[in-house]
Formats: sequence, structure tokens, C-alpha cells
Amino acid sequence: MNITIVGLGLIGGSMARDLKSQLNVRVKGVDTSAHHSRLAGELGLVHEMVNLNDGLNGADIVILAVPVDKIEEMLPDILNHTSAHTTVVDVGSTKSEMCRAVEGHPHRSRYVAAHPLAGTEYSGPEAAIRGLFTGKKNIICEPEKSNEQILNTALALFESLGMNTLFMAAEEHDKHLAYVSHLSHVSSFMLGLTVLDIEKDEKQIFELAGTGFASTVRLAKSNPATWSAIFGKNQKYVLEALNSYIAHLSGFRDRLEEGNLAAAQQLMAASNDIKRILH
Amino acid sequence: MNITIVGLGLIGGSMARDLKSQLNVRVKGVDTSAHHSRLAGELGLVHEMVNLNDGLNGADIVILAVPVDKIEEMLPDILNHTSAHTTVVDVGSTKSEMCRAVEGHPHRSRYVAAHPLAGTEYSGPEAAIRGLFTGKKNIICEPEKSNEQILNTALALFESLGMNTLFMAAEEHDKHLAYVSHLSHVSSFMLGLTVLDIEKDEKQIFELAGTGFASTVRLAKSNPATWSAIFGKNQKYVLEALNSYIAHLSGFRDRLEEGNLAAAQQLMAASNDIKRILH
Repeated sequence: MNITIVGLGLIGGSMARDLKSQLNVRVKGVDTSAHHSRLAGELGLVHEMVNLNDGLNGADIVILAVPVDKIEEMLPDILNHTSAHTTVVDVGSTKSEMCRAVEGHPHRSRYVAAHPLAGTEYSGPEAAIRGLFTGKKNIICEPEKSNEQILNTALALFESLGMNTLFMAAEEHDKHLAYVSHLSHVSSFMLGLTVLDIEKDEKQIFELAGTGFASTVRLAKSNPATWSAIFGKNQKYVLEALNSYIAHLSGFRDRLEEGNLAAAQQLMAASNDIKRILH
Repeated sequence: MNITIVGLGLIGGSMARDLKSQLNVRVKGVDTSAHHSRLAGELGLVHEMVNLNDGLNGADIVILAVPVDKIEEMLPDILNHTSAHTTVVDVGSTKSEMCRAVEGHPHRSRYVAAHPLAGTEYSGPEAAIRGLFTGKKNIICEPEKSNEQILNTALALFESLGMNTLFMAAEEHDKHLAYVSHLSHVSSFMLGLTVLDIEKDEKQIFELAGTGFASTVRLAKSNPATWSAIFGKNQKYVLEALNSYIAHLSGFRDRLEEGNLAAAQQLMAASNDIKRILH
């Protein structure tokens, strides 16, 4: 089985590590960044680094693991240059615009729109780790538009990484992810910026940062290029989630400003209900 | 050495566990909640649960570990009812208003205003754990207003818990903590509420919650009574931090709405600088 991974960052690199250890799998890597190419080679993430043409040639599976705007850009052309026996799968964090971009493509059925729900706040080939996907969920959108055999190949791929796949409409995926993933990143990025701002005047403030701050601000270490692409491609739902978040924060601020601590406490008690979901 | 802890929740209970294991220390507990009193007894957090009068009587150290509004309420009267040999120390998360409440008190010198920077998102006697304070920082405010021997007793107390104490003006403490601790809690509480709100319509949304969401929303499990008291007693600086946070979020929202992804990316890149502080 020949697998080519385009993009050897956190996600592509971690998939490479796990896949390369499987029997009878040969993993080729493609990365337009010379620095990442060299690193991926040095770290032994893949059997060999090649250019895109050599990567597509003879591949059973092509995995697109570059930023979501780049996936959308490359996808039509890659479908043009792969055979009917090649499964093309992407692992981007947004799905609607990507699916729309290949809607009428003559080879649409060779493509599987996927999103493995896994990651860390680190990025680049150095961030690639074994077992990142084990026990996590994978989402496949528009499964009915993929050829049955192509879809089964993709399902087997994610199962071999230890993932459990759910099917979901692309629009539904993007809406839900805006709330349970994308919003957390905006919240963290802006929390980091707020605290860095005050630090300009108050040098020793970080002496006092505890585990609570570390936890809420962790995602602010994430890759800005990856995330600006995600926010751009999921603009509608990220804005919806972000506006709702700002409205809740402003309401809380108003209660605090009025000195209405009972109302503020009620809001926090309602939020405690999150215990029901996260144990 | 007789130590009395008033309030056997997460902080008081955890101190009790560590102190009770020390040689020649006898720990008495006081808690106005019958449920917490019973639990603290059953869990063996203290040698005995007593009423407040019996707790103050003959105590070498009295530790106040109730919500900050209650500490402020109780403190003057407790200073009236303890002898010159008793060190009264509080462990509340705000310090300015509390210090002001005992500013002219004839026994002010018997009191040490402290804040051990440690905690988890859990609360109550069941949340009390060994070693919560080990290797963490403790802050003491207005050390010059405590009698030297009293201050040394408090310093020895926190050192015995494995803490490193810093001195700081009360006002400065409250301002810094608003940014590196209190704001994180508001951010988390309101993130939880935002996502619970959308969940009313979208039942399966939490299927998709990953480790990123878990991390940013963790503090939303915290005790609402504890935190509404903290926000009330640190109103000025929490409002300052929260307004700055809302302004940053709104600016980011505006960039996204305009489709100015380059500007959004620049904000995230600036926030990445948080790596400098959190490794």
C-alpha cells in the first residue's frame, strides 16, 4: 500500500509516524517548505520525501494535510491527476467550502472529506507524535458522494489509526466545530493577547500565572496560519459563535458593573452544567 | 502546635490534609455547613471538628479559608477574640478590601494577609488533596503591618506546605490576579455557557468536543459562590481586565467580519508570544 501525505506538520506528520510503522505500508511525503521537508526527512517521519508529481504517481491513498485554504486550492487539480484507484482524503478542520469547491468535479467520487478530531497546540514536523489519533473521533462528510470502495479505503485508513468515524453533513460539521473547537481557539488567542498587553506595564505579572491560566491560554500557542485559514473558511459559524460569546461576556460584565453578584453567580451556576459533559 | 482551619473546602481541606500529617500538629476544623462538617470528619481531614469558639480557644494559628466576602465579615471579630499569641491568616484570592476592613483594628498586627496560588476546578471537602501547595507560590500582602513573630509564624506555615512566599502590595496583588487568574475564570465560565446555549438545539454537539475545548472550559466547573465573592471583592480590576478582553475579542471579530485574515493572523501571531512565558 502506497500512501502519500501532502503536508508534514502536526497532523500529517503524526499520521505519517503511525502509518509508517504499519506492515506493507510505504509512506511518501510532500512539503513545499524546504525547512519542513528537511526536518521530516531527518525525523524519519516518512520513507522518502518527494515532489507532488512523484507523490501522486502510483499512490493508493493521497492525504491532504495542509492548511484548509491550500487544500481547497489543490484539491480539484489533484483529482485531475490521480487515477480511479487512488483515494484522495483531506484532514482539514472545515468541510463546507471544500466540498463545494469539488461539487461538480468529474472525479468527485474519488475524494473523501474527513476531519480527524485530534491535535495539540504545537505545530510543524517536530510536533508530530505517535498515537495522536488513538481513541479519537473522525468525521466524514458527504459519504454518499464518494465511491463505495474509495470510502471503504478511507474508513480502513482511519480505523488503522485507532479512530471511530461518524458521518455528518458538511454544514452541520462546520457549525458544531465552530462552537466546540474554533471558538476555544479565538477565546485562548485573545486571552493571551489581553494578558500580554497588560504585561507591557507590569513586568512581573507572569510570576503569578497558575495552572488555571495555563489551561485557558494553552491554545494561544497554536499555529496562526493554520487557524486564520480555518476561521476564513468557517467565517459564518465562527462569527456566530464569537458574537454569542461576546454577548455572554458583556452580559456578565454588566451584572458585575451593577454589583448584581447574585445574577453573576446564577450565570456561573448555569455554566457548571458543563460537568455533565466533561468529567 | 494547635492549628484551626475555618472552612474545609478545596483550599482549607487540602491545607488540613498536609498539616495533619506533620509531627506535633493538632488540626481542628470549623465549618458552618453541617454537610461539609460531616464530610470533613468522615474523610479524616482534621483531628476534630469544633465550633468557632472552641476553634479560636488556644489556637496558635487560625486559618480562614471561607469565601472572600465571609473572610472580610469574620476577620474583625476573630481578631477581637484571639490572643496576642495567635497568628490569624487568611488564604483568600483578593486582598485589598480585606486589608482595608482591618486597617485601624487594634489587633491588626496579629493578622497576615496571604494568598497561596494553588487550586483545582473542584470544590468542597471531597476535593481536598495532599500536596496541592507543593512547589507553588504564596503571596503575603502588607507584611509590614503584621507583628514580626506573627509574620514569621505565617511564613513557616507556608514553607511547611512547600510554598515559596513573595511580598506584594494588596492593590498590586488584586490587579495582577485579575489578569492571570480571575479573567481566565470569567472566560471559561462564559465559554461554557455559550456552548451549552447552542446545545439546546444541537443535541449531539458534545460528541465532538475535543481536548482543546476541555482545556479552555475546565475552570467553568469551579464553585460559583467562591467566584462571585472574588469578582465582587475585586470588581474594579476584574472589570478592567474583562473590558480589555471583550475589546480584543471584538477587534478580532471585526477583522474576521471584514474578511481581513492577514490582520487576524497578525493578532494570533502576537498572542503566540505567550510561549515565552508558558513552556
